[in-house]
Amino acid sequence: MGVVVQNIERADPAVISRLAKCGVATVHEAQGRKGLLAAYMRPIYSGASIGASAVTISAPPADNWMVHVAIEQVKEGDILVLAPTSPSDAGYFGDLLATSMQARGGVGLIIDAGVRDVRDLTAMNFPVWSKAICAEGTVKETLGSVNIPIVCAGALVNPGDVMIADDDGVCVVRREEAAEIADKAEARIANEEEKRKRLAAGELGLDMYKMRERLAEKGLKYV
Amino acid sequence: MGVVVQNIERADPAVISRLAKCGVATVHEAQGRKGLLAAYMRPIYSGASIGASAVTISAPPADNWMVHVAIEQVKEGDILVLAPTSPSDAGYFGDLLATSMQARGGVGLIIDAGVRDVRDLTAMNFPVWSKAICAEGTVKETLGSVNIPIVCAGALVNPGDVMIADDDGVCVVRREEAAEIADKAEARIANEEEKRKRLAAGELGLDMYKMRERLAEKGLKYV
Amino acid sequence: MGVVVQNIERADPAVISRLAKCGVATVHEAQGRKGLLAAYMRPIYSGASIGASAVTISAPPADNWMVHVAIEQVKEGDILVLAPTSPSDAGYFGDLLATSMQARGGVGLIIDAGVRDVRDLTAMNFPVWSKAICAEGTVKETLGSVNIPIVCAGALVNPGDVMIADDDGVCVVRREEAAEIADKAEARIANEEEKRKRLAAGELGLDMYKMRERLAEKGLKYV
Amino acid sequence: MGVVVQNIERADPAVISRLAKCGVATVHEAQGRKGLLAAYMRPIYSGASIGASAVTISAPPADNWMVHVAIEQVKEGDILVLAPTSPSDAGYFGDLLATSMQARGGVGLIIDAGVRDVRDLTAMNFPVWSKAICAEGTVKETLGSVNIPIVCAGALVNPGDVMIADDDGVCVVRREEAAEIADKAEARIANEEEKRKRLAAGELGLDMYKMRERLAEKGLKYV
Amino acid sequence: MGVVVQNIERADPAVISRLAKCGVATVHEAQGRKGLLAAYMRPIYSGASIGASAVTISAPPADNWMVHVAIEQVKEGDILVLAPTSPSDAGYFGDLLATSMQARGGVGLIIDAGVRDVRDLTAMNFPVWSKAICAEGTVKETLGSVNIPIVCAGALVNPGDVMIADDDGVCVVRREEAAEIADKAEARIANEEEKRKRLAAGELGLDMYKMRERLAEKGLKYV
Amino acid sequence: MGVVVQNIERADPAVISRLAKCGVATVHEAQGRKGLLAAYMRPIYSGASIGASAVTISAPPADNWMVHVAIEQVKEGDILVLAPTSPSDAGYFGDLLATSMQARGGVGLIIDAGVRDVRDLTAMNFPVWSKAICAEGTVKETLGSVNIPIVCAGALVNPGDVMIADDDGVCVVRREEAAEIADKAEARIANEEEKRKRLAAGELGLDMYKMRERLAEKGLKYV
Repeated sequence: MGVVVQNIERADPAVISRLAKCGVATVHEAQGRKGLLAAYMRPIYSGASIGASAVTISAPPADNWMVHVAIEQVKEGDILVLAPTSPSDAGYFGDLLATSMQARGGVGLIIDAGVRDVRDLTAMNFPVWSKAICAEGTVKETLGSVNIPIVCAGALVNPGDVMIADDDGVCVVRREEAAEIADKAEARIANEEEKRKRLAAGELGLDMYKMRERLAEKGLKYV
Repeated sequence: MGVVVQNIERADPAVISRLAKCGVATVHEAQGRKGLLAAYMRPIYSGASIGASAVTISAPPADNWMVHVAIEQVKEGDILVLAPTSPSDAGYFGDLLATSMQARGGVGLIIDAGVRDVRDLTAMNFPVWSKAICAEGTVKETLGSVNIPIVCAGALVNPGDVMIADDDGVCVVRREEAAEIADKAEARIANEEEKRKRLAAGELGLDMYKMRERLAEKGLKYV
Repeated sequence: MGVVVQNIERADPAVISRLAKCGVATVHEAQGRKGLLAAYMRPIYSGASIGASAVTISAPPADNWMVHVAIEQVKEGDILVLAPTSPSDAGYFGDLLATSMQARGGVGLIIDAGVRDVRDLTAMNFPVWSKAICAEGTVKETLGSVNIPIVCAGALVNPGDVMIADDDGVCVVRREEAAEIADKAEARIANEEEKRKRLAAGELGLDMYKMRERLAEKGLKYV
Repeated sequence: MGVVVQNIERADPAVISRLAKCGVATVHEAQGRKGLLAAYMRPIYSGASIGASAVTISAPPADNWMVHVAIEQVKEGDILVLAPTSPSDAGYFGDLLATSMQARGGVGLIIDAGVRDVRDLTAMNFPVWSKAICAEGTVKETLGSVNIPIVCAGALVNPGDVMIADDDGVCVVRREEAAEIADKAEARIANEEEKRKRLAAGELGLDMYKMRERLAEKGLKYV
Repeated sequence: MGVVVQNIERADPAVISRLAKCGVATVHEAQGRKGLLAAYMRPIYSGASIGASAVTISAPPADNWMVHVAIEQVKEGDILVLAPTSPSDAGYFGDLLATSMQARGGVGLIIDAGVRDVRDLTAMNFPVWSKAICAEGTVKETLGSVNIPIVCAGALVNPGDVMIADDDGVCVVRREEAAEIADKAEARIANEEEKRKRLAAGELGLDMYKMRERLAEKGLKYV
Repeated sequence: MGVVVQNIERADPAVISRLAKCGVATVHEAQGRKGLLAAYMRPIYSGASIGASAVTISAPPADNWMVHVAIEQVKEGDILVLAPTSPSDAGYFGDLLATSMQARGGVGLIIDAGVRDVRDLTAMNFPVWSKAICAEGTVKETLGSVNIPIVCAGALVNPGDVMIADDDGVCVVRREEAAEIADKAEARIANEEEKRKRLAAGELGLDMYKMRERLAEKGLKYV
């Protein structure tokens, strides 16, 4: 505890943008169903959909001192990802911190704890995915760390990893794998478009995916 | 497990429509306060309000194979009602399956598990009531059954039962009782309209329902 | 149990209005971080923001008889605050009761239990903060009390206390302290406005709050 | 609501006893993995293991009037199975009711709500599986029903069905299927004994169940 | 925050002892079903049953500094009752603090947060009722208060109130009402003894409480 | 997915044993308050206290195929640590698998999911820390991986890391740091012994830790 890593590597912004367009569900599938944060991480408003580079924060429960430290490390296109060292619903973050983030080019917050001032944040178009909405404030007494690997809502996040977040939740993509996963995710999107047309035309998944034979083998009975 | 019942009876569409207009809270009262699914079943977007005929699915945890099987059984005005055999938050259903449902006249999904692609589903005007929103996908490995009686979110649902769902939650009405309950629910609506006017005019429930005497008998004291 | 206190004191409406404008997060800070209701208390729709004088209800589980009794005690600008004597998610309150409340000048409901008819309540612009949305109705069999001190969602609420509620949650302010807290809250708002400008201009919290020295003393290391 | 079914059929006590000896996990497997109550149903003390015939109770939240009604219907070897019509943690049952149950030959309680006097119940050797332990009492104001089909902790239970309960949880077996399931469960036990010996001798499940080939087909890689 | 009230009044130890003997469920009934802490407050070991005078602690989340401050205020027969100002599962208390408590005559802990070293505490015969068991430690950075009124697990506790705790949970009795409630609770115990004998002899509650007529009036039907 | 790492490094058994003796709370403190698994991980019986080397399993929800694969990798003194890829309460593990584990020298199981046959496991003295106890079985259909880094109950666990578990919960120690942490933990134990004596003799923590001055500086007031 008590370490700030200052120079982290980030993925190519163009790759991050491509991943963001694919969305969480598709990216999660494309990388073999890994990297999803827990389903209790919910957006404070509907419709936000982003990709961003993680600046990670390991913070004590109900203590947001490290958020101030982390914002100095934020560059254009970054997102804060905060995990408390012990569970907390306290509101670590509000509209003042969001103002500071936006001034530095930061694009959002993913926090396995609470957030407040959600109406202001919504008006500012500053997206947050959190475990709780809670007006309870925090103290500034105990050190944590910035830009170390953290476990956030059940997923390992390294500084510089790519965070994809939308109404379905949040997924982390390893920085080193981002370009490869973007290719795979886009391929899935293309493939899904084809399937969508056939399904819209009334074709059944049973036929399109050729499931009937395997179902029969397993013993499915129609009565 | 591993059974698909193909020909199920359905309630009269006109009756289903009448129940839908009355809404969940009224229908639930009208049938003697039974048939409500657990309150954790929430709509993915506000304002949807439907009545539909249940096509039921008993599915293994995190395995959506039976959804494909069930869609073949869907007719105009049907809704899928899925209960996992063991608790799961996985996302069994997304926009491709919704496309297929709409192509066959299906009108929605009630699932005691997770759903994904919620922004797309909202844009498609495809209502879902679920326990969770989760990007985690599922496998297609193990059989379940379609159109057998299931327990979904604490309520017994038979294939062909009428599902009423709106912002207050989800209620099931037995197919055989649907017409009778529709009559009772409409009578409640008419009766409520009268009460609403009197309350809006400032009359107290205490007087309108003649509660004062019974409260005094029970010993209520004003100080 | 079984007591209705009829004449309660209320805070000055002008003071209540000033507190409402400051919002929950600011008021909570201004009074030394006390009085917050549990974070599970959520609004049925976004954007409502109110201040009101509490008419308190201690009610049996799944029994809303006392709500009718309480409404007679409601005056212009009051809000009902209900705590069940044992946990319940039942829907104690719906559109008919809201009609009656509005006819008497009541402005909302805070309930550590369930509410129903949420679409109607939203259309009526009648805000509710609740633990649950649930179509399950209640009975009218057992007495409770009105305008006694209650514990609602973990916070002590006295009749006549000021309730501040918005998208961040709900906070209670003691009636006797309301004017003093309003002064403190407004001072915070003024102070925050200044900070917001400096942060928006790119100044770091680390510098604005002069945190660097204390962080170094605690041993924070930059690598 | 408000119905008591007096003459229900029960399974053969010898069959119930055979099922009890097999235990919940084995019986659940033997009947194709159905009938398990939710995992939150926990015994008030470790080591109890029973089979019994269900006398079902559908009761209002926090109202135990129907328990008194149900006890009159209890015969030697019966167990009460109670589901509230709306979720409740209230303590419906304590040592007086257990005394009454034991006087009539009743052997336990399965309740999707709360129980109290757990130290006394333990001393009486009266097993209970419940959702909660809660000293909060209940009222006797509203009717429910006895010996109708109920959904208890997510499982459908008919009066006269066989309840198997031990430290692993609770499982319901349909009365009509009890003898067949007892045969299947005992066969599993016999089969498991053989497996246990081979595993204890160091043989791997991979070999005993001949899994290696199928794992390789699926693509498992050893590195 | 930041206040220690040093001289508090306590109830008569003989009265506390009488209440303890009656147990939580009986005391809760005797005082009109009020004062129960939430059912999630569980003992770390079975069989403990105590009555004690409350020394209250309002503590910041994950900060146990005030526990040290409070122990200085503890007298023979006192129990610590701690409520965090924001939810926390952290382990505020372990075997060293219990050693200190026992050295001063303190008899236990009731904490709406976490406790650790539970095996040692059990060996020391030091009972704890808590929301969580958690090895996570706490800091000593932020002030709280000692011996002010707190809300603990949903119940208001004043310093010097009587805490009754056993396997059924925890109940608070107002200091001023303790003697009166002890009388009422003992009367209930005496009355229950009589009922227990009649029930054990096979008499039904339906007859003993003369319920049959009222059930018939409400419309209960036997079929 | 679908990888089994066969040769992993383990910590020195003597070091593991030293850590086990110190217990979870002390080890957690000794390594700077990191590595604790979520507090919902509870032992199936009280009193177990172990240290062991992790064989990790990443398994699909409700699919225990990989447990069989993992057991082949188990050596004397190892413990299985299983994280499902999506939340599951299913019972992945029972007495047959425990028999196989013991035959190979395995000493326990840590599982962020369910376990069954808990009475048998207790009788076998086979300790398990789990999220749930659940009789629901699993399938063997989908690959996972063995001995890859996993996130289990919120903590990152690498194969070969040291798991310390007792009644307070579960903590992971990095293999590379195990010897250093053992030294620190033992130093804490020695230090605590000294403190315990002074506290038992009646000395206050306030004096022993010299807290009075700092409390006064922060503004604590005695009234």
